[in-house]
Amino acid sequence: MMKGIAHIGIAVKNLEKSKQLFEQLLGVSPSHEETVEGQKVKIAMFDLGGSHLELTESLDSFSPIARFIEKRGEGIHHISIEVEDIRAELNRLGQLGFTPVDPNPRDGAGNFLVAFLHPKSTNGVLVELCQKKPG
Amino acid sequence: MMKGIAHIGIAVKNLEKSKQLFEQLLGVSPSHEETVEGQKVKIAMFDLGGSHLELTESLDSFSPIARFIEKRGEGIHHISIEVEDIRAELNRLGQLGFTPVDPNPRDGAGNFLVAFLHPKSTNGVLVELCQKKPG
Repeated sequence: MMKGIAHIGIAVKNLEKSKQLFEQLLGVSPSHEETVEGQKVKIAMFDLGGSHLELTESLDSFSPIARFIEKRGEGIHHISIEVEDIRAELNRLGQLGFTPVDPNPRDGAGNFLVAFLHPKSTNGVLVELCQKKPG
Repeated sequence: MMKGIAHIGIAVKNLEKSKQLFEQLLGVSPSHEETVEGQKVKIAMFDLGGSHLELTESLDSFSPIARFIEKRGEGIHHISIEVEDIRAELNRLGQLGFTPVDPNPRDGAGNFLVAFLHPKSTNGVLVELCQKKPG
């Protein structure tokens, strides 16, 4: 079951500059900042009524985020949808013909398990599923 | 004041096909459908825990949505943020150097006033502000 929009992921070149920009835009400071070593990114989250904007800067010029910016420029990268049971959803969606990028969930930011679906199966929208880890 | 993420706008070529796709993806039916004559679009909304995905098909091949799809393909088009007072926010953001596309709010879907900010001033992200109309 899908619970709600966890965050909207935005690819940025310079997290410090973009943090300042979004602080001005939204009128609030980031609610969470983190470096996700496994994905070689650093992020800043802004809480907007329970959903979030997640700014992501790549720490590796060959990462998916870096390649996205090179191809399309800074901007909206993905939608993250929180689910009750990420493995059950991946199984359900696989049977319906959606294409998981990650066949198994992996660690994401903020104590979540995450898995992406390929945008070719979702109308060009890169969808991340996420599930809060216990504890 | 910003209240939350009202919706994520997704540009699609064929609303009927995309509605079926997102019904499968999300496991729910659209919560709202509408033709917005002033913007020459038809939309379908999916409620995801209070925030929404808004699928939009253009009814005019020269509209911004049609041009977006022509240039970048189907996909995420904008983020809509609900505010308390849209005119006050446009004024605040204009003074901070953000660039309104719409200097004055106009009618959007679902009984909202809406106004866009130019993505050049917001890290490549097309941001729509919206305010629920009274009544």
